[in-house]
Amino acid sequence: MKISARNVFEGTIDTLQPGAVNAEVSIALGNDRLVAVVTMESVRSLELAAGKSVLAIVKAPWVLLMSDDSGVRLSARNQLRGTVKLVEAGAVNAEVVLTLAGGTELTSIVTKEAVAELGLKPGTSAIAVIKASHVILGVPA
Amino acid sequence: MKISARNVFEGTIDTLQPGAVNAEVSIALGNDRLVAVVTMESVRSLELAAGKSVLAIVKAPWVLLMSDDSGVRLSARNQLRGTVKLVEAGAVNAEVVLTLAGGTELTSIVTKEAVAELGLKPGTSAIAVIKASHVILGVPA
Amino acid sequence: MKISARNVFEGTIDTLQPGAVNAEVSIALGNDRLVAVVTMESVRSLELAAGKSVLAIVKAPWVLLMSDDSGVRLSARNQLRGTVKLVEAGAVNAEVVLTLAGGTELTSIVTKEAVAELGLKPGTSAIAVIKASHVILGVPA
Repeated sequence: MKISARNVFEGTIDTLQPGAVNAEVSIALGNDRLVAVVTMESVRSLELAAGKSVLAIVKAPWVLLMSDDSGVRLSARNQLRGTVKLVEAGAVNAEVVLTLAGGTELTSIVTKEAVAELGLKPGTSAIAVIKASHVILGVPA
Repeated sequence: MKISARNVFEGTIDTLQPGAVNAEVSIALGNDRLVAVVTMESVRSLELAAGKSVLAIVKAPWVLLMSDDSGVRLSARNQLRGTVKLVEAGAVNAEVVLTLAGGTELTSIVTKEAVAELGLKPGTSAIAVIKASHVILGVPA
Repeated sequence: MKISARNVFEGTIDTLQPGAVNAEVSIALGNDRLVAVVTMESVRSLELAAGKSVLAIVKAPWVLLMSDDSGVRLSARNQLRGTVKLVEAGAVNAEVVLTLAGGTELTSIVTKEAVAELGLKPGTSAIAVIKASHVILGVPA
């Protein structure tokens, strides 16, 4: 599949919690895990169910980065611990690639000031924060 | 109206499906169509109803691009087929303008790597992917 | 706390309106006010309630800017009036810092074209538009 999002993860649905309008879908990405909230209509049309292989798609500007010792708990469902692999700075933004604990690589776009303030460089540990409603799910057509 | 979003579409509400908390609003943009999910409170305060003229607003970084032959079905409600009109690259990001099948122009901001991987250049066909919850609706004050 | 988001506001919960799945949380930031929609699960796990101190976090690319005289009403819950303090342009994007009426500083990332079209420069008035579902809440760990 060719899609512009930097983060296209192949995974397997772990659990699917249906609601009236939305469903919460937990996806195992090898040893990492991502939670998505999608509409029940998507659950039906994509035939999502536990055990099914899916793609979890997250655009890089939708990923926040947090330092390890932030001392804060957040409302965002996905908070994934990793190590910075690469930082590539532009004029306003920078692209930061993180290797998660389970081996998954995740790309975030943040401002250059954020890179400086968090002291992000290869080897630094960081937490990637992703809202569950910002994860798009896909299945083979 | 002056707003920073690259995508401000004038359209007409086609159908409005009310829910307990949110409503799904389908908007005809000439021969293209966009689906938005907004709160029922917005439906009431903006007096949204079928037949009403609205503005549909989508920030360019909220638009993903997908190649035509991606072989994948996505949970995102809006998947709009078009042709690349223009690519303008920066240091990290690139702005891509698409002309949709119905004539509407749509702007996306993606990474430069995505432009290379998808082979995006004027004349290439592509699909713009937009989550329904990322569409803001507006009406004249 | 160290987080990559440009906007990390310290505030106090004013009102919390619980729903079946989501809650609407109004946060006083000194003399400014921000509305967030979070899941009821986050309300429980972070023990959110009126009077509690929280951090409200908004990534800069999630903030739209609108001119003062736009003549439009939007479905987005947060429309915060302010004055441009700073504009820093990159190749594709620009970072715009706004001082809100109540004194809070808010950063938005928009395209350079938007800066030109809205005539944004220090001293210009503008309205920051933020969807309530794009506000992440945090509490001390």
